[in-house]
Amino acid sequence: MTKSTGQLDNLTSIDNWQSIANGIWRCELGDISKEQCYSNLAVAPPRWDRINVLSPADFPFVSDVPSYQNKDGKITIRIPAEADEQLYGFGLQFDGLKKNKTVLTLNTDHWNKGGGRTHAPVPFYISSKGYGVFFNTARYLKVYCQIGNRKDSPNNPVPVDRNPVPETESIDPWQAVPQGDAVEGHIIGKGMEIIVFSGASMLDVVRRYNLYCGGGVLPPLWGLGFWHRVHAAFDADQTEAEVAAFNEKQFPLDVVGLEPGWMSSSYPCTFEWQKARFAEPDVLAKRLLEQGVRLNLWINPYVSPESRIHDEIYPYSGSHMVWLGLVPDYYMPQARRLLVEQHTKEHLNIGISGYKVDEVDGYDFWLWPDHATFPSGISGESMRQTYGLLMQNLLYKDLFKKNNQRTYGNVRSSNGGASGYPFVIYSDSYDHAQYIRGISAASLCGVLWTPEVRNAATAREWLNRMQTVCFSPMAKLNAWATGLHPWSFPEVEAAVRKVIQLRMRLLPYIYSAFADYHFNGVPPMRAMMLESEAIDINGTVVKGKLDSETDPYAMNTVMETTDQFMFGPSIMVAPFYGDKATERQVHLPSGKWYDFYSGQPVGSHTTFVIKAEVLNDQIPLFVKDGALIPMLSKNLLNTQGIQGCDLELRHYGTADGTFELYEDDGKSFDYEQGAYRIRTLSVTEQGLTETLSKDDAAALFGSVSLRRMS
Amino acid sequence: MTKSTGQLDNLTSIDNWQSIANGIWRCELGDISKEQCYSNLAVAPPRWDRINVLSPADFPFVSDVPSYQNKDGKITIRIPAEADEQLYGFGLQFDGLKKNKTVLTLNTDHWNKGGGRTHAPVPFYISSKGYGVFFNTARYLKVYCQIGNRKDSPNNPVPVDRNPVPETESIDPWQAVPQGDAVEGHIIGKGMEIIVFSGASMLDVVRRYNLYCGGGVLPPLWGLGFWHRVHAAFDADQTEAEVAAFNEKQFPLDVVGLEPGWMSSSYPCTFEWQKARFAEPDVLAKRLLEQGVRLNLWINPYVSPESRIHDEIYPYSGSHMVWLGLVPDYYMPQARRLLVEQHTKEHLNIGISGYKVDEVDGYDFWLWPDHATFPSGISGESMRQTYGLLMQNLLYKDLFKKNNQRTYGNVRSSNGGASGYPFVIYSDSYDHAQYIRGISAASLCGVLWTPEVRNAATAREWLNRMQTVCFSPMAKLNAWATGLHPWSFPEVEAAVRKVIQLRMRLLPYIYSAFADYHFNGVPPMRAMMLESEAIDINGTVVKGKLDSETDPYAMNTVMETTDQFMFGPSIMVAPFYGDKATERQVHLPSGKWYDFYSGQPVGSHTTFVIKAEVLNDQIPLFVKDGALIPMLSKNLLNTQGIQGCDLELRHYGTADGTFELYEDDGKSFDYEQGAYRIRTLSVTEQGLTETLSKDDAAALFGSVSLRRMS
Repeated sequence: MTKSTGQLDNLTSIDNWQSIANGIWRCELGDISKEQCYSNLAVAPPRWDRINVLSPADFPFVSDVPSYQNKDGKITIRIPAEADEQLYGFGLQFDGLKKNKTVLTLNTDHWNKGGGRTHAPVPFYISSKGYGVFFNTARYLKVYCQIGNRKDSPNNPVPVDRNPVPETESIDPWQAVPQGDAVEGHIIGKGMEIIVFSGASMLDVVRRYNLYCGGGVLPPLWGLGFWHRVHAAFDADQTEAEVAAFNEKQFPLDVVGLEPGWMSSSYPCTFEWQKARFAEPDVLAKRLLEQGVRLNLWINPYVSPESRIHDEIYPYSGSHMVWLGLVPDYYMPQARRLLVEQHTKEHLNIGISGYKVDEVDGYDFWLWPDHATFPSGISGESMRQTYGLLMQNLLYKDLFKKNNQRTYGNVRSSNGGASGYPFVIYSDSYDHAQYIRGISAASLCGVLWTPEVRNAATAREWLNRMQTVCFSPMAKLNAWATGLHPWSFPEVEAAVRKVIQLRMRLLPYIYSAFADYHFNGVPPMRAMMLESEAIDINGTVVKGKLDSETDPYAMNTVMETTDQFMFGPSIMVAPFYGDKATERQVHLPSGKWYDFYSGQPVGSHTTFVIKAEVLNDQIPLFVKDGALIPMLSKNLLNTQGIQGCDLELRHYGTADGTFELYEDDGKSFDYEQGAYRIRTLSVTEQGLTETLSKDDAAALFGSVSLRRMS
Repeated sequence: MTKSTGQLDNLTSIDNWQSIANGIWRCELGDISKEQCYSNLAVAPPRWDRINVLSPADFPFVSDVPSYQNKDGKITIRIPAEADEQLYGFGLQFDGLKKNKTVLTLNTDHWNKGGGRTHAPVPFYISSKGYGVFFNTARYLKVYCQIGNRKDSPNNPVPVDRNPVPETESIDPWQAVPQGDAVEGHIIGKGMEIIVFSGASMLDVVRRYNLYCGGGVLPPLWGLGFWHRVHAAFDADQTEAEVAAFNEKQFPLDVVGLEPGWMSSSYPCTFEWQKARFAEPDVLAKRLLEQGVRLNLWINPYVSPESRIHDEIYPYSGSHMVWLGLVPDYYMPQARRLLVEQHTKEHLNIGISGYKVDEVDGYDFWLWPDHATFPSGISGESMRQTYGLLMQNLLYKDLFKKNNQRTYGNVRSSNGGASGYPFVIYSDSYDHAQYIRGISAASLCGVLWTPEVRNAATAREWLNRMQTVCFSPMAKLNAWATGLHPWSFPEVEAAVRKVIQLRMRLLPYIYSAFADYHFNGVPPMRAMMLESEAIDINGTVVKGKLDSETDPYAMNTVMETTDQFMFGPSIMVAPFYGDKATERQVHLPSGKWYDFYSGQPVGSHTTFVIKAEVLNDQIPLFVKDGALIPMLSKNLLNTQGIQGCDLELRHYGTADGTFELYEDDGKSFDYEQGAYRIRTLSVTEQGLTETLSKDDAAALFGSVSLRRMS
C-alpha cells in the first residue's frame, strides 16, 4: 500500500472534490472559465438517470490524495498510483493499452506517432483498482505515469549501485526507470477540470465515462452494413456501375463513398459538386437510394477561395490556412451557419447520408501552427485538440440531428467527450496488428475505430483484413486508390462474401450492442481487460477489478491481450493477422466458451492454438455459455429489406440466456422520445420466451426462432 | 522578392531593434526579466573588440520586417523568409543542416530524435542571404520554417486543384506543403530576446555568433591529443596497465577516462572514490601524469544519498530526483559551492584534468518532468534546456578557471551561448554518416562534437571511424564497454596508428585553428556551406552568401554536402564511411585543391570518386592552393614532449601562403592576459619568412622548416 504522501513540497492537496453523481466526482484547478473542456463539445448532457442506476462506487483515493500546483501559467496535477496498480488508456494508442511507466504527450496527430500522439489522444486513464481519471482540458497534456520520483515522497525505492564492487552487490537490480508513485501531468493553461469515475469493475468505469459524455452513439442501421469507396476521379456513371457490380457479384453494399474529386475543387475544398463528373448529383443519389445504397462524401474542412462561402466565412476563420484554404472557426455560430446552409442545400437535401472528415488530425507540416489565432479566442492548441470533435459536433448537431436524420461517417481525429458521435476514426497507417489493437484501445475512451481495408499483399491477408473489419464498428473497404474490390482475390472471394454476409446476418445483435452503448455506456466492441474476470485468492470471481493479489494468470494473459476483443455482449473475436495469418494463440477468460460456428465447447480459462483450416478459413469467434445471438434468418444485400425480417436466435452452451433485442425505426432520432422497444428474449431448457418493453413502438424485426447450437 | 506583409492580423511589427555592435541587433519581446537567456550562461561577455573589426554588415530585414505577438502567455515571432532563401542550423541536428520547409521542436533530448530534439537544440539559424537569428530563450521553441500560410499574407501561392477534371489541370503541381514566407515560432513564456547577426558571408554570421557568446573555446594542448576510456569495473592497477599497453604498442595517449565504477556508488553518484578499486587515487593520478597522461572522470550530476554532500545540497535541489539522486539547482551559489569544494578537494587537487558529464540530455523517462520545481525559481523546462550548459558553466568557471587550469572534457547536452566551453558533445547513437554530419552541424551553432569510436563490425569500419574521429574536435576511443583498443583489428593496426600519429603531428595546425575560434570566432571544423564560394552571374566569387541567382552548382552540390568538412583553415576531410567504406564521391569547391599526402593537384570546382586503395588506406584529405600546414617534425606519444618541438611547414600548390601560428603555454589562462604570441609564417616563391607578434611571450614550438609539397 502506498504511504500517504501528505503535503509534498509546492503541492496543494485537492480538497474541492464535488460528488456530482453516483461514482463520479469533479474538481476545478485554477480558473477554467476561459479554458476549453472536451465535455463542452459532447453530444448531450450526462445521462444522470443511467449513471445513478449503476452499482454504487466509492471515491478511490483514501490513503493518499491527489494534489496540484498552479504556477507560472502551468497547472500540474499529481494523482497517487500504487506500485501494483495497472494503468490503461489515454486514448486511441496503437502501441498498447497498458501505460505503466511511460511518458505521454497527448497531442492530436496523424498516424501512430507514439509517445501519446495519435488521432484521438483522449486524456482519460483507467486503473486496475477500479477508477478512471478524465483530464477534461483541450490542452496538450504531458503525463508521467509512475515515472518520476519526488525527493520528499515516502514511497521512493532505495537506490541501487549500478557499478558495485563485487562484495557489495545488491539483490535488487538497478532500475533505469525507478518505480514512481503517481501519475503526474501538466498543461500550460489557467485551469483544468478533473473528473474521477469509480466503478465496481473497469467496465463500469468506462460506462460512467460514456454516460457522462451523453451516452454512446446509436448509428443508423444502414451504417452498420457494408461500405465501399470509389476512386477520386470517378464520375456518376462509374459510381453507379460500381454499385451494379456489387449487386451482380452478390456482395452486400449499404454505403458508397465519393473521394475528393466529387468537388469542383479540392484541396482546399469548395464543397460544391464537380459538374463535369456529377452533372445531376440529386438524380444519382436518388437512383442509388432506390437500390438501398447511400452516398457518403469525403471532405476536409479547409475552404477554397473558389468556394461560394469563402468570402463570407473569411472573417470567421483562423489566422493561418491549411493547404491554402481557410480554417473556419466553428466555435463561431456565423461560421457554422454558413457551412450548414451550404451543406443542407447541396448535400442533405438531395439525400447525402454523411461525411468522411479527413485531415483534422493535426500533422504539424499541414495544420496551423500552435500559435495560430482564431476569432472566437480559442487558442491554436485547443483548436487542434478539438477540431475533429468540433466537426463532429457541427455536422451531427446542426446538420443531421436538426433534420431528425441519423448519420454515420468517418473522422480522422477525435478526443474526450466523443462517445455519442456517429463518426468512426480511421488512419493512413496500415499495420494489421495495430489495427486490431485499435479496436480495444478505442473501447477505453469513448471513440469508435475502423480497421478499414485498403490493400493486401496476398489473398490470405486480404481475407484476414476483411474478416477483422467486419467485426469492427464500421465494415469498410477503402480501396479507392488501389481500385480493389471485395472480390479482387478470386481464391478468397467466397470466404470474403461469407464474412460480409455474416456481418449482415448479425445486424440485430450488433444494433442491440450499440443500443447498450447508447443507453448504458457499454462499448459494443471491447478490450479483453473490460471483460476479464479474475479469480481472487478466495476463489471469488472479481469482474474487471484487479490488483496483484488476484490471479496473475488473468492479469497477465487475458488482460494484456490486445489481438482479440469482445464483439457485442457474448462474442469474442480472435482474428488472424500478420505472421499469425493462419494460426494463432487464443486466450479464453474464465467461464465456458463455445465455437460460434459449431457450437462445440472450446474450453475455459485457457490458452490454445487455433488454425484457419479447422474453421474452413472463417474468422475465429467464441461465444459465452448461455449466450443468445439474434441473427437475420436470410442474407440481405443491404439494410433496405431488413424491416420485418425474421430472426434466428442462436443459443450456445447449457446455461440459460437472455438477450435484450433493441428495435426502433433504425434511422431517426425518434427513439429519444421513446419510440423504441426492447424485446427481452429468454432461453431456458424449457424454450424461448419473449417479453416486450412496450407494445406501442413499431417492430423492426419479425418473428424469432430458437436454434440451439450446443 | 517577398512582398512586404506590412501589418498582419494580430501581429505587431518589431520596432525596438537596438544595434548593439557591428552587424548585431537585438530586441526584447514581452518581459524578459524573469526569463532565462542562454547568453546569461555564456563563458564570457561578447568580444565587442573582435566583432567590430569584422566587415560591416547591414540589417537584413528591409523590404519586410519581423513581427510578434504576446498573448495568453505565449510569445510568437514571425521572421520573413523568401522562397529562394536557404535556412540552416537549429543546433546539433544529425538529420541534415538544411531546414527549409520543416517544423522543429527545440527540446533537449538524447540520441537523434528528429523533429528538432537533440543533445544541443540551439535556437539559432543561418540564412543563405547572409544573416542569422538567435532566439535567446531557454524555453522549448517550436519553429515552423517556411511552413504555414497566413491568410492575409500577400506572398501565398495560388491553390492548385488536387483532383482536377482533365481539361482544367494546372501546370503547377499540387503541393502537400505550400511554400511559406516566414520562419514563425513560439514559446510559452513571458518574453524572449532575439539577436540578429548579419555578415558578409555565412561564416561571418557564425563568427559574430561565436564572438557574441564570448569567443570559441581554446582547449589545453593535451585535450587535442588521443583519448581512451577504460572499463567501468577497472581498478587503479588495470588502468595503469592499460596506459602501459598503449605505450608498448606505441599508440599515442594523452587522456585516460574512468567510467562510473570509480565512484563509491553510482548512479546516483557520490563523486567520491571507490576505495576498493582506487585506494590511492592521488598516487595513480601522479604516476600517470609523470608519463604525460591525464585522468578524466565520468560523472552524472545526480547526487546519491550516500554522498557526503547529499544532506547539505538537499534544500538546493529540485522537487524531483533522477535515478533516485538529487538534482542540484546550480543556479544557486550554495549548491555550486558544495560541489566545487568536494570536487576541488577530491579531484582537482590530485590532478584530475576534467569530466565527462553524462545524462544531462533529457530523456523524458529519466529526467525530471517539465513541471518539476527548483529552489532558484527556474522552471523545470528551462532547467532541462540549460542543465548541460549549467554544468559546463559550473565546472569551467568555478573549478578550473578559478584555478587557472584549462580543462577539456565531454558533455551530453549543450545549447545556445556555449561557444567558449571546453566540453565536446557525444551521443549513444552510432550511425557513422550521422556522426560525420554532426561535425558540420556543430560548426553552425557554437558547439563541439566528437564522433567517438565504440565498436565496429569490420576492420574497415574500425579504421574509417578512427580516421574520422582523428579529424574531429576530440580524438576519442570510448570503447570501455566493448574492451576494444586501437590495435584490436590487426589488419588495420598500422593504419590506425598512422592516423593517430598524423593527428598528433598536426597539433600545431589544430591548436592555431582553435585559437582562431577563440579570438575570431572561426569554427575549427566547419560545414562546407561556410566555406563554399559561389560564382555569381557576373563571374564574381561570392563567399558563402548565396541565393538562387548565384551558381546553382555551388548551392546544390557543395553547400548541401555534409559528409565532408573543413578541418582548420586549409584541409578538407572526406572520410570513408558506411557503404562508402572504400570508395566515395568528393565535391571540391572552386579554387585549386591538392592531395594532402602527395601534394598533387586534384581539381577545382568538380566532383570525383576517390578510392581507399589509391591513398593506401589513408583518410582522404585535400588542401587549398597556397595552404601552409605546420606539423610536428617527429612523432610524439603524447603532448608532454611538445614544448620546443621543431616544425615542418608544408606548402601546397603554387600560390603564396600565410599561416598564423599560435603559441602559448598550452594549459593556463595566462593567454587572456596577453601571454601568447603569433608567429606569422609566410611562404612565397622566394621562401619562408617569419614575423612575431611579440617576442616577450614564451615560444611553444621550435624552429620551422619549409617543405614544398607541390
